[in-house]
Amino acid sequence: MTHVYLSQKGSFTASHSHSGTLAEKSHVHRFTYEVTFYGPLNEEGYLLDFREVKKVLTKVILPLKEKNLSTLFTNPTTETICLWIYKEVSKYLPHLYSVKLAEAPDRWITYKGD
Amino acid sequence: MTHVYLSQKGSFTASHSHSGTLAEKSHVHRFTYEVTFYGPLNEEGYLLDFREVKKVLTKVILPLKEKNLSTLFTNPTTETICLWIYKEVSKYLPHLYSVKLAEAPDRWITYKGD
Amino acid sequence: MTHVYLSQKGSFTASHSHSGTLAEKSHVHRFTYEVTFYGPLNEEGYLLDFREVKKVLTKVILPLKEKNLSTLFTNPTTETICLWIYKEVSKYLPHLYSVKLAEAPDRWITYKGD
Repeated sequence: MTHVYLSQKGSFTASHSHSGTLAEKSHVHRFTYEVTFYGPLNEEGYLLDFREVKKVLTKVILPLKEKNLSTLFTNPTTETICLWIYKEVSKYLPHLYSVKLAEAPDRWITYKGD
Repeated sequence: MTHVYLSQKGSFTASHSHSGTLAEKSHVHRFTYEVTFYGPLNEEGYLLDFREVKKVLTKVILPLKEKNLSTLFTNPTTETICLWIYKEVSKYLPHLYSVKLAEAPDRWITYKGD
Repeated sequence: MTHVYLSQKGSFTASHSHSGTLAEKSHVHRFTYEVTFYGPLNEEGYLLDFREVKKVLTKVILPLKEKNLSTLFTNPTTETICLWIYKEVSKYLPHLYSVKLAEAPDRWITYKGD
Protein backbone atom coordinates (compact mmCIF):
# COMPACT_ATOMS: atom_id res chain seq x y z
CA MET A 1 0.00 0.00 0.00
CA THR A 2 1.31 3.42 -0.97
CA HIS A 3 2.33 5.65 1.94
CA VAL A 4 3.12 9.37 1.69
CA TYR A 5 4.16 12.25 3.93
CA LEU A 6 1.89 15.32 4.04
CA SER A 7 3.16 18.60 5.52
CA GLN A 8 1.41 21.84 6.43
CA LYS A 9 3.25 25.00 7.43
CA GLY A 10 2.13 28.06 9.38
CA SER A 11 3.42 30.76 11.70
CA PHE A 12 2.57 32.76 14.80
CA THR A 13 4.11 35.47 16.92
CA ALA A 14 4.77 35.04 20.64
CA SER A 15 7.26 36.14 23.28
CA HIS A 16 9.26 34.15 25.82
CA SER A 17 12.08 34.59 28.31
CA HIS A 18 14.55 32.04 29.74
CA SER A 19 16.05 31.40 33.14
CA GLY A 20 18.97 29.06 33.96
CA THR A 21 21.86 28.58 31.53
CA LEU A 22 19.88 30.03 28.60
CA ALA A 23 19.00 33.19 30.63
CA GLU A 24 17.56 35.83 28.34
CA LYS A 25 15.11 38.69 28.80
CA SER A 26 11.64 38.45 27.26
CA HIS A 27 11.85 38.72 23.47
CA VAL A 28 9.42 38.25 20.59
CA HIS A 29 9.78 35.46 18.02
CA ARG A 30 7.94 34.83 14.80
CA PHE A 31 7.64 31.06 15.17
CA THR A 32 7.15 28.96 12.04
CA TYR A 33 5.80 25.42 12.35
CA GLU A 34 5.70 22.52 9.91
CA VAL A 35 3.54 19.56 10.86
CA THR A 36 4.05 16.32 8.91
CA PHE A 37 1.81 13.26 8.74
CA TYR A 38 2.71 9.83 7.33
CA GLY A 39 0.22 7.23 6.24
CA PRO A 40 -1.53 5.35 3.43
CA LEU A 41 -3.44 6.94 0.57
CA ASN A 42 -7.20 6.39 0.87
CA GLU A 43 -9.45 5.24 -1.99
CA GLU A 44 -9.78 8.84 -3.19
CA GLY A 45 -5.99 9.12 -3.57
CA TYR A 46 -5.02 11.33 -0.62
CA LEU A 47 -3.80 10.98 2.97
CA LEU A 48 -5.59 13.85 4.73
CA ASP A 49 -7.58 16.85 3.47
CA PHE A 50 -5.23 19.86 3.66
CA ARG A 51 -8.22 22.08 4.56
CA GLU A 52 -9.01 19.88 7.57
CA VAL A 53 -5.33 19.82 8.64
CA LYS A 54 -5.10 23.61 8.46
CA LYS A 55 -8.28 23.97 10.53
CA VAL A 56 -6.88 21.73 13.30
CA LEU A 57 -3.49 23.47 13.33
CA THR A 58 -5.12 26.88 13.59
CA LYS A 59 -7.12 25.64 16.60
CA VAL A 60 -4.05 24.08 18.27
CA ILE A 61 -1.90 27.18 17.79
CA LEU A 62 -4.55 29.68 18.91
CA PRO A 63 -3.68 29.56 22.68
CA LEU A 64 -0.03 30.43 21.81
CA LYS A 65 -0.71 33.31 19.41
CA GLU A 66 0.57 36.69 20.56
CA LYS A 67 1.00 35.31 24.08
CA ASN A 68 3.86 35.51 26.53
CA LEU A 69 4.84 31.84 26.54
CA SER A 70 6.59 32.26 29.90
CA THR A 71 3.15 32.58 31.49
CA LEU A 72 1.96 29.34 29.84
CA PHE A 73 5.01 27.05 30.24
CA THR A 74 7.40 26.63 33.19
CA ASN A 75 10.28 26.34 30.77
CA PRO A 76 9.31 27.81 27.39
CA THR A 77 12.22 26.63 25.26
CA THR A 78 11.49 26.06 21.58
CA GLU A 79 11.94 22.35 22.40
CA THR A 80 9.15 22.51 25.02
CA ILE A 81 6.73 24.29 22.70
CA CYS A 82 7.51 21.92 19.83
CA LEU A 83 6.69 18.90 22.03
CA TRP A 84 3.50 20.56 23.23
CA ILE A 85 2.29 21.18 19.66
CA TYR A 86 3.04 17.53 18.82
CA LYS A 87 0.97 16.31 21.78
CA GLU A 88 -1.95 18.59 20.94
CA VAL A 89 -2.07 17.78 17.21
CA SER A 90 -2.02 14.05 17.98
CA LYS A 91 -5.27 14.47 19.95
CA TYR A 92 -7.14 15.61 16.82
CA LEU A 93 -5.50 13.96 13.81
CA PRO A 94 -4.14 10.48 13.07
CA HIS A 95 -0.86 9.67 11.30
CA LEU A 96 1.20 12.42 12.98
CA TYR A 97 4.87 11.99 12.05
CA SER A 98 6.78 15.12 13.12
CA VAL A 99 6.57 18.74 14.23
CA LYS A 100 9.23 21.25 13.23
CA LEU A 101 9.25 24.56 15.08
CA ALA A 102 11.54 27.41 14.02
CA GLU A 103 12.10 30.26 16.47
CA ALA A 104 13.77 32.20 13.63
CA PRO A 105 14.35 31.48 9.92
CA ASP A 106 17.86 30.20 10.72
CA ARG A 107 17.20 27.79 13.62
CA TRP A 108 14.61 25.16 14.50
CA ILE A 109 13.69 22.06 16.49
CA THR A 110 12.13 18.91 15.03
CA TYR A 111 10.36 16.27 17.14
CA LYS A 112 9.30 12.90 15.74
CA GLY A 113 7.76 11.37 18.87
CA ASP A 114 9.36 9.04 21.42
CA MET B 1 31.80 3.84 1.26
CA THR B 2 30.55 7.41 1.65
CA HIS B 3 26.90 7.96 0.72
CA VAL B 4 25.23 11.35 0.30
CA TYR B 5 21.84 12.79 -0.57
CA LEU B 6 21.60 15.14 -3.58
CA SER B 7 18.54 17.35 -4.10
CA GLN B 8 17.37 19.47 -7.01
CA LYS B 9 14.45 21.86 -6.81
CA GLY B 10 12.24 23.40 -9.49
CA SER B 11 8.73 24.67 -10.13
CA PHE B 12 5.92 24.74 -12.67
CA THR B 13 2.45 26.16 -12.99
CA ALA B 14 -0.60 23.99 -13.67
CA SER B 15 -4.30 23.83 -12.84
CA HIS B 16 -6.45 21.06 -11.42
CA SER B 17 -9.94 20.46 -10.04
CA HIS B 18 -11.21 17.82 -7.61
CA SER B 19 -14.32 15.72 -7.35
CA GLY B 20 -15.40 13.58 -4.37
CA THR B 21 -14.72 14.69 -0.79
CA LEU B 22 -12.09 17.21 -1.89
CA ALA B 23 -14.50 18.79 -4.43
CA GLU B 24 -13.09 22.08 -5.69
CA LYS B 25 -13.41 24.02 -8.94
CA SER B 26 -10.44 24.26 -11.29
CA HIS B 27 -7.69 26.42 -9.77
CA VAL B 28 -4.10 27.23 -10.65
CA HIS B 29 -1.14 26.18 -8.47
CA ARG B 30 2.50 27.07 -8.66
CA PHE B 31 3.86 23.62 -7.84
CA THR B 32 7.38 23.35 -6.42
CA TYR B 33 9.20 20.02 -6.56
CA GLU B 34 12.32 18.76 -4.80
CA VAL B 35 13.80 15.52 -6.07
CA THR B 36 16.36 13.76 -3.84
CA PHE B 37 18.82 10.99 -4.73
CA TYR B 38 20.84 8.88 -2.32
CA GLY B 39 23.93 6.91 -3.23
CA PRO B 40 27.72 6.55 -3.09
CA LEU B 41 30.24 9.15 -4.19
CA ASN B 42 32.04 8.13 -7.38
CA GLU B 43 35.82 8.35 -7.88
CA GLU B 44 35.48 12.01 -8.89
CA GLY B 45 33.81 12.83 -5.55
CA TYR B 46 30.19 13.35 -6.54
CA LEU B 47 26.93 11.37 -6.73
CA LEU B 48 25.27 12.77 -9.86
CA ASP B 49 26.02 15.76 -12.08
CA PHE B 50 23.54 18.50 -11.10
CA ARG B 51 23.39 19.63 -14.75
CA GLU B 52 22.30 16.15 -15.85
CA VAL B 53 19.71 15.94 -13.02
CA LYS B 54 18.24 19.29 -13.99
CA LYS B 55 18.01 18.23 -17.65
CA VAL B 56 16.08 15.07 -16.73
CA LEU B 57 13.71 16.89 -14.36
CA THR B 58 12.95 19.52 -16.98
CA LYS B 59 12.06 16.73 -19.45
CA VAL B 60 9.89 14.87 -16.90
CA ILE B 61 7.98 17.99 -15.86
CA LEU B 62 7.39 19.29 -19.40
CA PRO B 63 4.09 17.38 -20.00
CA LEU B 64 2.65 18.94 -16.79
CA LYS B 65 3.71 22.55 -17.41
CA GLU B 66 0.84 25.00 -17.82
CA LYS B 67 -1.56 22.09 -18.32
CA ASN B 68 -4.96 21.32 -16.82
CA LEU B 69 -3.95 18.27 -14.77
CA SER B 70 -7.58 17.12 -14.64
CA THR B 71 -7.29 16.22 -18.33
CA LEU B 72 -4.13 14.15 -17.69
CA PHE B 73 -4.99 12.31 -14.46
CA THR B 74 -8.27 10.69 -13.35
CA ASN B 75 -7.67 11.98 -9.84
CA PRO B 76 -5.16 14.85 -9.90
CA THR B 77 -4.44 15.21 -6.19
CA THR B 78 -0.99 16.50 -5.27
CA GLU B 79 -0.35 12.95 -3.98
CA THR B 80 -1.11 11.47 -7.43
CA ILE B 81 1.15 13.92 -9.26
CA CYS B 82 3.96 13.42 -6.74
CA LEU B 83 3.85 9.64 -7.28
CA TRP B 84 3.79 10.12 -11.06
CA ILE B 85 6.91 12.33 -10.97
CA TYR B 86 8.66 9.70 -8.81
CA LYS B 87 7.84 6.96 -11.31
CA GLU B 88 8.99 9.04 -14.28
CA VAL B 89 12.28 10.22 -12.74
CA SER B 90 13.15 6.64 -11.76
CA LYS B 91 13.03 5.67 -15.47
CA TYR B 92 15.90 8.02 -16.31
CA LEU B 93 18.11 8.30 -13.21
CA PRO B 94 19.43 5.81 -10.64
CA HIS B 95 19.53 6.35 -6.85
CA LEU B 96 16.14 8.07 -6.58
CA TYR B 97 15.26 8.57 -2.90
CA SER B 98 12.24 10.89 -2.66
CA VAL B 99 10.04 13.42 -4.42
CA LYS B 100 8.53 16.35 -2.55
CA LEU B 101 5.75 18.26 -4.31
CA ALA B 102 4.34 21.47 -2.84
CA GLU B 103 1.02 22.73 -4.20
CA ALA B 104 1.64 26.00 -2.32
CA PRO B 105 4.53 27.32 -0.20
CA ASP B 106 2.75 26.17 2.97
CA ARG B 107 1.77 22.59 2.09
CA TRP B 108 3.37 19.62 0.37
CA ILE B 109 3.50 15.84 -0.16
CA THR B 110 6.66 13.72 0.04
CA TYR B 111 6.93 10.23 -1.43
CA LYS B 112 9.87 7.94 -0.73
CA GLY B 113 8.81 4.88 -2.73
CA ASP B 114 6.97 1.76 -1.54
CA MET C 1 13.88 9.82 27.17
CA THR C 2 12.76 12.54 24.79
CA HIS C 3 15.04 13.10 21.79
CA VAL C 4 14.80 16.04 19.39
CA TYR C 5 16.55 17.37 16.30
CA LEU C 6 18.07 20.87 16.45
CA SER C 7 19.08 22.71 13.27
CA GLN C 8 21.07 25.88 12.64
CA LYS C 9 21.37 27.54 9.24
CA GLY C 10 23.92 29.97 7.83
CA SER C 11 25.58 31.02 4.60
CA PHE C 12 28.90 32.06 3.09
CA THR C 13 30.28 33.08 -0.27
CA ALA C 14 33.16 31.24 -1.95
CA SER C 15 34.35 30.30 -5.42
CA HIS C 16 35.39 26.97 -6.92
CA SER C 17 36.24 25.40 -10.26
CA HIS C 18 36.02 21.78 -11.42
CA SER C 19 38.17 19.51 -13.53
CA GLY C 20 37.23 16.06 -14.90
CA THR C 21 33.66 15.30 -16.02
CA LEU C 22 32.24 18.28 -14.12
CA ALA C 23 34.76 20.67 -15.78
CA GLU C 24 33.75 24.28 -15.16
CA LYS C 25 35.65 27.55 -14.87
CA SER C 26 35.94 29.24 -11.49
CA HIS C 27 32.56 30.62 -10.37
CA VAL C 28 31.19 32.14 -7.17
CA HIS C 29 28.50 30.45 -5.08
CA ARG C 30 26.52 31.69 -2.13
CA PHE C 31 26.60 28.46 -0.13
CA THR C 32 23.89 27.87 2.48
CA TYR C 33 24.45 25.27 5.20
CA GLU C 34 22.07 23.63 7.66
CA VAL C 35 23.63 21.64 10.47
CA THR C 36 21.37 19.28 12.44
CA PHE C 37 21.98 17.61 15.81
CA TYR C 38 19.97 14.79 17.36
CA GLY C 39 19.96 13.89 21.03
CA PRO C 40 18.16 13.90 24.40
CA LEU C 41 16.76 16.96 26.14
CA ASN C 42 18.79 17.88 29.23
CA GLU C 43 17.27 18.71 32.64
CA GLU C 44 16.76 22.33 31.52
CA GLY C 45 14.65 21.17 28.56
CA TYR C 46 16.96 21.73 25.61
CA LEU C 47 19.46 19.79 23.50
CA LEU C 48 22.14 22.40 22.76
CA ASP C 49 22.32 26.15 23.26
CA PHE C 50 21.66 27.75 19.85
CA ARG C 51 24.12 30.55 20.72
CA GLU C 52 26.90 28.00 21.30
CA VAL C 53 26.03 26.13 18.08
CA LYS C 54 26.15 29.35 16.07
CA LYS C 55 29.54 30.26 17.56
CA VAL C 56 31.01 26.89 16.58
CA LEU C 57 29.59 27.00 13.05
CA THR C 58 30.96 30.50 12.50
CA LYS C 59 34.41 29.24 13.56
CA VAL C 60 34.22 26.15 11.34
CA ILE C 61 33.08 28.09 8.27
CA LEU C 62 35.61 30.93 8.66
CA PRO C 63 38.43 29.24 6.63
CA LEU C 64 36.01 28.83 3.68
CA LYS C 65 34.55 32.34 3.65
CA GLU C 66 35.29 34.35 0.52
CA LYS C 67 37.99 31.85 -0.43
CA ASN C 68 38.76 30.07 -3.69
CA LEU C 69 37.91 26.53 -2.58
CA SER C 70 40.01 25.10 -5.42
CA THR C 71 43.11 26.22 -3.50
CA LEU C 72 41.90 24.46 -0.31
CA PHE C 73 40.55 21.15 -1.68
CA THR C 74 41.91 18.87 -4.41
CA ASN C 75 38.37 18.27 -5.62
CA PRO C 76 36.07 21.04 -4.33
CA THR C 77 32.67 19.56 -5.22
CA THR C 78 29.77 20.54 -2.99
CA GLU C 79 29.88 16.92 -1.76
CA THR C 80 33.53 17.31 -0.65
CA ILE C 81 32.88 20.57 1.18
CA CYS C 82 29.76 19.16 2.86
CA LEU C 83 31.75 16.19 4.20
CA TRP C 84 34.52 18.49 5.37
CA ILE C 85 32.06 20.67 7.34
CA TYR C 86 30.58 17.52 8.92
CA LYS C 87 34.02 16.32 10.04
CA GLU C 88 34.95 19.74 11.47
CA VAL C 89 31.69 20.30 13.37
CA SER C 90 31.95 16.83 14.93
CA LYS C 91 35.27 17.86 16.51
CA TYR C 92 33.59 20.60 18.57
CA LEU C 93 30.00 19.51 19.23
CA PRO C 94 28.34 16.21 20.21
CA HIS C 95 25.13 14.78 18.74
CA LEU C 96 25.87 15.76 15.12
CA TYR C 97 23.24 14.23 12.82
CA SER C 98 23.57 15.80 9.36
CA VAL C 99 25.01 18.62 7.28
CA LYS C 100 23.12 20.04 4.31
CA LEU C 101 25.07 22.27 1.94
CA ALA C 102 23.33 24.14 -0.88
CA GLU C 103 25.48 25.56 -3.67
CA ALA C 104 22.40 27.48 -4.89
CA PRO C 105 18.83 27.84 -3.60
CA ASP C 106 17.68 25.08 -5.96
CA ARG C 107 20.28 22.34 -5.32
CA TRP C 108 22.02 20.83 -2.31
CA ILE C 109 23.88 17.89 -0.79
CA THR C 110 23.05 16.28 2.58
CA TYR C 111 25.45 14.06 4.49
CA LYS C 112 24.42 12.04 7.55
CA GLY C 113 27.71 10.32 8.35
CA ASP C 114 28.91 6.86 7.35
